[in-house]
Amino acid sequence: LHSMSLSSGPPPPNSQSSNAVATEDSSSRETDALVHFLRGAPPTSGASQGQLDSLHQPSGAIHPASLPVTSLVSGANRNQHQSKPGGGNYSAFSEASSTAVAGAPAASGGPLGASDEEMIDLTPGQDNPFRDPFGAQSAALSQHRREAATAMGNLGGGRRRSSSGGDDFVDLGGANPIDANEAAGLAEGHYNDFETIDWLKDIGRHRKRHREILRRMKLSCRGKLVSLFDSFSGWLCVGLIAVAAGLVAGVVDIGTTWMSDLRDGICAEAFWFNKEQCCWSSNDTTFDDEQACRQWYTWAELVGDSNKDFGAYIFKYLLYILWSLLFALLAALLVKVFAPYACGSGIPEMKTILSGFVIRGYLGKWTLLIKSVGIMLAVSAGLNLGKEGPMVHMAACCGNIIAYLFPKYGRNEAKKREVLSAAAAAGVSIAFGAPLGGVLFSLEEASYYFPLKTLWRSFFCSMVAASVLKLVNPFGNDHLVLFYVEYRSTWSVIEIGPFILLGVIGGLFGAGFIRANVWICRIRKFGRLGRFPIAEVMLVTLVTALLAFPNTYTRMNTSRLIKLLFSKCGPEDEAELCDYKWNSTNDYSGSAPAGPGIYSAMWKLMLAYLFKMVATVFTFGIKVPSGLFIPSLAVGAIAGRVLGNVLEQVAVSRMDSFPFRLFCRAGQPCINSGLYAMIGAAAALGGVTRMTLSLVAIMLELTGGLQYIVPLMIAAMTSKWVGDRLTKGGIYEEHIRLNGYPYLDNKEEFAHTTIAADVMHPRRGEAQLQLLYQDSMNVEDLETLMAASDVNGYPVVVSRDSHYLLGFVTRRDLMLALEFARKNEDGIVGDSLVYFTEHLVAGAVAARHTDAGASSTDGQPPALKLRRIVDLSPITVTDQTPMEVVLEMFRKLGLRQTLVTHNGRLLGLITKKDVLRHIEYLHSIDPHNLIFS
Amino acid sequence: LHSMSLSSGPPPPNSQSSNAVATEDSSSRETDALVHFLRGAPPTSGASQGQLDSLHQPSGAIHPASLPVTSLVSGANRNQHQSKPGGGNYSAFSEASSTAVAGAPAASGGPLGASDEEMIDLTPGQDNPFRDPFGAQSAALSQHRREAATAMGNLGGGRRRSSSGGDDFVDLGGANPIDANEAAGLAEGHYNDFETIDWLKDIGRHRKRHREILRRMKLSCRGKLVSLFDSFSGWLCVGLIAVAAGLVAGVVDIGTTWMSDLRDGICAEAFWFNKEQCCWSSNDTTFDDEQACRQWYTWAELVGDSNKDFGAYIFKYLLYILWSLLFALLAALLVKVFAPYACGSGIPEMKTILSGFVIRGYLGKWTLLIKSVGIMLAVSAGLNLGKEGPMVHMAACCGNIIAYLFPKYGRNEAKKREVLSAAAAAGVSIAFGAPLGGVLFSLEEASYYFPLKTLWRSFFCSMVAASVLKLVNPFGNDHLVLFYVEYRSTWSVIEIGPFILLGVIGGLFGAGFIRANVWICRIRKFGRLGRFPIAEVMLVTLVTALLAFPNTYTRMNTSRLIKLLFSKCGPEDEAELCDYKWNSTNDYSGSAPAGPGIYSAMWKLMLAYLFKMVATVFTFGIKVPSGLFIPSLAVGAIAGRVLGNVLEQVAVSRMDSFPFRLFCRAGQPCINSGLYAMIGAAAALGGVTRMTLSLVAIMLELTGGLQYIVPLMIAAMTSKWVGDRLTKGGIYEEHIRLNGYPYLDNKEEFAHTTIAADVMHPRRGEAQLQLLYQDSMNVEDLETLMAASDVNGYPVVVSRDSHYLLGFVTRRDLMLALEFARKNEDGIVGDSLVYFTEHLVAGAVAARHTDAGASSTDGQPPALKLRRIVDLSPITVTDQTPMEVVLEMFRKLGLRQTLVTHNGRLLGLITKKDVLRHIEYLHSIDPHNLIFS
Repeated sequence: LHSMSLSSGPPPPNSQSSNAVATEDSSSRETDALVHFLRGAPPTSGASQGQLDSLHQPSGAIHPASLPVTSLVSGANRNQHQSKPGGGNYSAFSEASSTAVAGAPAASGGPLGASDEEMIDLTPGQDNPFRDPFGAQSAALSQHRREAATAMGNLGGGRRRSSSGGDDFVDLGGANPIDANEAAGLAEGHYNDFETIDWLKDIGRHRKRHREILRRMKLSCRGKLVSLFDSFSGWLCVGLIAVAAGLVAGVVDIGTTWMSDLRDGICAEAFWFNKEQCCWSSNDTTFDDEQACRQWYTWAELVGDSNKDFGAYIFKYLLYILWSLLFALLAALLVKVFAPYACGSGIPEMKTILSGFVIRGYLGKWTLLIKSVGIMLAVSAGLNLGKEGPMVHMAACCGNIIAYLFPKYGRNEAKKREVLSAAAAAGVSIAFGAPLGGVLFSLEEASYYFPLKTLWRSFFCSMVAASVLKLVNPFGNDHLVLFYVEYRSTWSVIEIGPFILLGVIGGLFGAGFIRANVWICRIRKFGRLGRFPIAEVMLVTLVTALLAFPNTYTRMNTSRLIKLLFSKCGPEDEAELCDYKWNSTNDYSGSAPAGPGIYSAMWKLMLAYLFKMVATVFTFGIKVPSGLFIPSLAVGAIAGRVLGNVLEQVAVSRMDSFPFRLFCRAGQPCINSGLYAMIGAAAALGGVTRMTLSLVAIMLELTGGLQYIVPLMIAAMTSKWVGDRLTKGGIYEEHIRLNGYPYLDNKEEFAHTTIAADVMHPRRGEAQLQLLYQDSMNVEDLETLMAASDVNGYPVVVSRDSHYLLGFVTRRDLMLALEFARKNEDGIVGDSLVYFTEHLVAGAVAARHTDAGASSTDGQPPALKLRRIVDLSPITVTDQTPMEVVLEMFRKLGLRQTLVTHNGRLLGLITKKDVLRHIEYLHSIDPHNLIFS
Repeated sequence: LHSMSLSSGPPPPNSQSSNAVATEDSSSRETDALVHFLRGAPPTSGASQGQLDSLHQPSGAIHPASLPVTSLVSGANRNQHQSKPGGGNYSAFSEASSTAVAGAPAASGGPLGASDEEMIDLTPGQDNPFRDPFGAQSAALSQHRREAATAMGNLGGGRRRSSSGGDDFVDLGGANPIDANEAAGLAEGHYNDFETIDWLKDIGRHRKRHREILRRMKLSCRGKLVSLFDSFSGWLCVGLIAVAAGLVAGVVDIGTTWMSDLRDGICAEAFWFNKEQCCWSSNDTTFDDEQACRQWYTWAELVGDSNKDFGAYIFKYLLYILWSLLFALLAALLVKVFAPYACGSGIPEMKTILSGFVIRGYLGKWTLLIKSVGIMLAVSAGLNLGKEGPMVHMAACCGNIIAYLFPKYGRNEAKKREVLSAAAAAGVSIAFGAPLGGVLFSLEEASYYFPLKTLWRSFFCSMVAASVLKLVNPFGNDHLVLFYVEYRSTWSVIEIGPFILLGVIGGLFGAGFIRANVWICRIRKFGRLGRFPIAEVMLVTLVTALLAFPNTYTRMNTSRLIKLLFSKCGPEDEAELCDYKWNSTNDYSGSAPAGPGIYSAMWKLMLAYLFKMVATVFTFGIKVPSGLFIPSLAVGAIAGRVLGNVLEQVAVSRMDSFPFRLFCRAGQPCINSGLYAMIGAAAALGGVTRMTLSLVAIMLELTGGLQYIVPLMIAAMTSKWVGDRLTKGGIYEEHIRLNGYPYLDNKEEFAHTTIAADVMHPRRGEAQLQLLYQDSMNVEDLETLMAASDVNGYPVVVSRDSHYLLGFVTRRDLMLALEFARKNEDGIVGDSLVYFTEHLVAGAVAARHTDAGASSTDGQPPALKLRRIVDLSPITVTDQTPMEVVLEMFRKLGLRQTLVTHNGRLLGLITKKDVLRHIEYLHSIDPHNLIFS
């Protein structure tokens, strides 16, 4: 595969055969790596392979390996499509999107999207296959970008200066006039879809822009204003994002409640009221299913069948199922037709995007719109999913859309990611009413590159979003929090035992869930199941509704279930779960023996546990928007509540024996089963997501139980420990791996002994790297080179015989510069020499003088000076550098590739893809390291 | 200065003259930088200059610039002292320590420490001037280290492999037998005092060790056990640290309460009871100064003067002052005599240490002991300081001491810093009972290099420490929190206005405080004030006691004052601050007009505000342990309470006018002045320290006011904004700058256009770098080179004519290797060629063969192969690399130095010191950038 992406040979006609050739040629280790990489993919797909290869793709060109087998006619049309930006990469897009969203067919979505079968036949050979509703938008954006580039001149790798220490350099004189012009549109940081961004370069461009603004500030009054605006635009931008996200969340919260209640009945007074609002007027403040208020009419009542016999039950059952199916169908259709990227939780993709990858349209306005509507429908359909994960995605969509209003962020992918980090924080903030938890979530889970400035922005964004949500007040209470707990009892140190047990249960659940879910998603992705996404949604909904209705605890809204489980029983409580035998001895405040209601509730809860666990495994991954937080919390809360009640009853019966006598006093509550539910919920969520700090913060803010911070920490820590022994990462990491996103995990330690020379390409026996020579190539050479290869950049070395590294040129810059020169420069022909350096080595100058003497008479064409497109500060490592250091550099500096040298001579190149592949390979041969990491 | 540290010339006899020479030789920019650097330092000191130069210091050698003028006799003795590790660097130590702790005289502390005057005459020429109580310990440790090195073989930069791509290399054959032996004691990661650590190399050593353990695990059963222990030792280590820190905190908390109460009186029943414990028995639960309980005897009562007339007041006043002076004297003496590093808060130094700097003894057991006792005394002396900052330092001391029990951490400075980060989290956790806040503090403020693994460890450490403290239960209540607020009223969105105002007030206070405090500390450091530290402590204590006693609010313990200000008034409240005109209309629950008590309390509080503000400015920096958190909180709380009460009264009088009618309802509390005090406290602390996220978390956990998270965020954000416009960093950053610590701030953005070539040395006109040639130097050449220079390492290049970079050798390794070879290798003489490469270039091999042919008969000495001490993977940048990228690399990768190349040829070197100096220089010429950063 290395040879494919970097060799100079013509592109092989068929990706399968090319894979086969590469496999046979390479060493056995290489073979293992390939096999490992292709393991999950059936022969017709190419799946993660294509995904990863797109890293290497040049602008607009199609890499053969990323094409479906059916579209192999493209080979001949390649050059044609290279000149059509945005048109050529359709195939990569559709291929990757079917990988990315696990079967979503329509490439970049769009209302015109067709079914899988149509899609698979679309080849890049067709005219304008880029049927994207955002087409107009992206065209406008690239126009913007071009203007920006023109205004700001060359934005390449920093300022150029004559180097200080050399004596054997001779400056060739003033800059070539071509330089100033050729800069237009070059080195401008535009990325194609499914490309990895280069943080260092983008941050460099940002600095350059910043300095330009500072310079202008000193010149004029308008400059001062612009500068002032620019320096506050970051805050303004995240502020706007927060407001938008808060409003979206408010709408979704209100809409969800209304739709959920719509399944039950309708408000006679005003149909747009939900049950709670409707009952406000009739002063009825309980929302028990049994006691409806006067203005609220259930569907059974509306059709006149208001008596509570078996027939009514069946009618309600049927209605429940029908509403569920209707909502689910709507959600699935909306997603399929308008925005395939709107399905799932979106957090794995967010993580990938934040780690420096470009997925066009994933955070677009269509995704936002469809995801908002879809999640309301999906939650109302009674599926085992939550709206909290999708809210993070929705907030990020707001962030992306609003970032385009600010050139500082919209035109710089690295800076945009800072804003997106803040938006992710706002997402959790509005999802749970947890501003602090949001920032920590963004820090611990979502973000990759998290400078402290981002921390403060996230903090601000999270705060504003929470304030806006408080103003919207969707829950109709003063607390921002969903599950406010009222109990103020303390906990005993001895209870740490059961808390650890809950952590273990949560960790086991999490690991089991991840394995089962990944297994099903794999079947869904590669098997026949994935071809009928809507049918699958309907099936899951049907089964869920059928099984959920009979059990009170599964029938009710999951959020209400969690609230119920977290709450503490008081003596006046009528609920089944609070059926205690209160008497004067236990004084209505201590613990009491359980009544029959509790025993029945326990059985029902245990059934609900099993049901929710299995249903969630099947639900997460179907083609509707779906989050995992609430279902996980619910499962954990059930486990915790059951354990809490069991312990409570043991304590009540053995109040005076060890260990209970140490902390239980008669007449005092001894074991608070609500607290156990809370801890269990935290443990389950921790087991699934492997969050720690952010989990505790979210749970704290969710419940207000600040005195339970240590139990929460214990549960979170334990479940993470247990979970990490059983699966490698959390559900998000596993989905990233499943989908083959180029995500370089920054949590893992690298414990292997490989060095850069083991990872770089070309390897021994592979073809040489494509190199540029600083002063000995002509325009034709370059054009031949570019036609023959499709790497995304070329190192520049001194000469054919002396491979000392000078710099790096991206393919895109080189192509644009050559095109520009051919069109706009007089006398640039195929024979024109191209200089990539300002200073020629003394010997070369002498030679040049001789040439010049000859050329002035011979009519030798003028030279083309391209030094401005050369990045003179490429990041390099030596061939002996341990891979752990290389990995650190990739992670921390956000590299796209690094050059490998030995004693100053260029040996090869390592791309992010190579690193990822290497890590996968090492894991496949030595899974043992996992245990002791 | 560059030429000084890297040139080959003999060391100049006088640091002053050498500075002068350097100044004249350099360009005007260089001059500016120097002037800027020396600005604060008087001619006799060399202060931050010496501090920074010590970065460059070779093992045990004394850099001339870091010597006091009086100790210049050292020049002649240099070589002698180089061979005495630990002996020679005394001078650097004393110099730097007087800089570091702003005048603390005794170098590495120790019970034998003498006064400044004695110290300043001690030159390195004396025998064994290293009078350190930890001497024995460090000797034992270096013994440990040596053993480890022998056991583990060469720990240099990763595995060496034959490079893959080269044809012109010829392997010289099997490893020289010398190699195996010479590895002993080399490349082992031992750092001298005041040296910068190299994170990448240390992490590499850690991996190497880890792999070795994994390898042994596969061999034997014992190996398996060792491996298991090793993989859990991290958790065990932080667990032990947490337990230790929790216990220390418990002891300090209890001790402080007891000592504070001792000033008032004594418990008749048992003198070791504090007032609260004493009064428990007499069932008296109020601790108002006026109402003492039966068992508790005030000193006035004991001497029989129990009537409350003027005489008694005077007696109490005098006693108050005397006790204060006694405690303060004890604290200051303890610090001066036993552990000068125990003074101050320790957080600036912690930050510096965590950023990768070595300060021996700063986290030692003496410091821990003296700081624990000293802080109890200092708090009890009634000084305006808190014990919370020092607790972070104390926890870090626990961390450092316990880390030595685990070779994984004790012997690896980079890994040790992970443990110290966790310990810092535990410190805040125990200081405030805020486990979450602790982790965030460690993340946001203390730590530098914070991988996610450290996050989890910190989380665990913080959690365990809080649990232990809960077990110790020093406050005698069930909450971990100090200032639990009971009010549950909500806040209105309109109140955001006053909250922002409080943020502004806090920011202004913070900036003013920082400027004033830094100004005073500068005087203290460079003026006459610093020479009499004990007198200064006594003076500050005297004035504080004199002024504090008359005002109730300043007389009381600062923590109690904060608790009082945070609390909400109930109708039954008797305190002056709660003198409301309750009546049936306002129903004892709403707001009420103020009575005379409130007005008098307001005046007293305003006086207290002024007093506390000024007193804290003078107190922070005197030579006793002192923290800033509690005084800042108190000042802010006063401001908040006053503002809250004023607003409350305005609201009461204009309940029906705008804006109050929007959120005030009669009979309901309208403005909660306790909440305002809380917000004000957060704002003031934010203004001083510039924390955001961790501040909010700490305040939340401190008060339990979870519904006030958004107001707290607003205040924190605003005060940071305002403060950042007025001073560059928080108090800790400013103290770091004042003391000249080599701390590379990771919060600042670098917005300049300089490139690596501008920063590296040698510059044009300076002497060449000291280089090693891979195969053309003999032992004598190397010895001459090392004798003539005192840099801490040498780049290895191909040959004298071809400066292509091969690797880097540290001075220490080279010295040890040569010494070892001279002693233990047969036939190694001055003429022996030294090879730094395994593969000789073909030409050289041919030459060598000829030589060998000749030498075998001529008796040519055998060659010394030193390739194993060469770091073949030095981090390099090109000369055109923008400094922002270089800075990123220094910060993110934790570099100590980077080599600068051009087309593969070595041009120069950039050290951390160069980067720091460059940043200072740029700030001095362009302070404007600050405003728009």
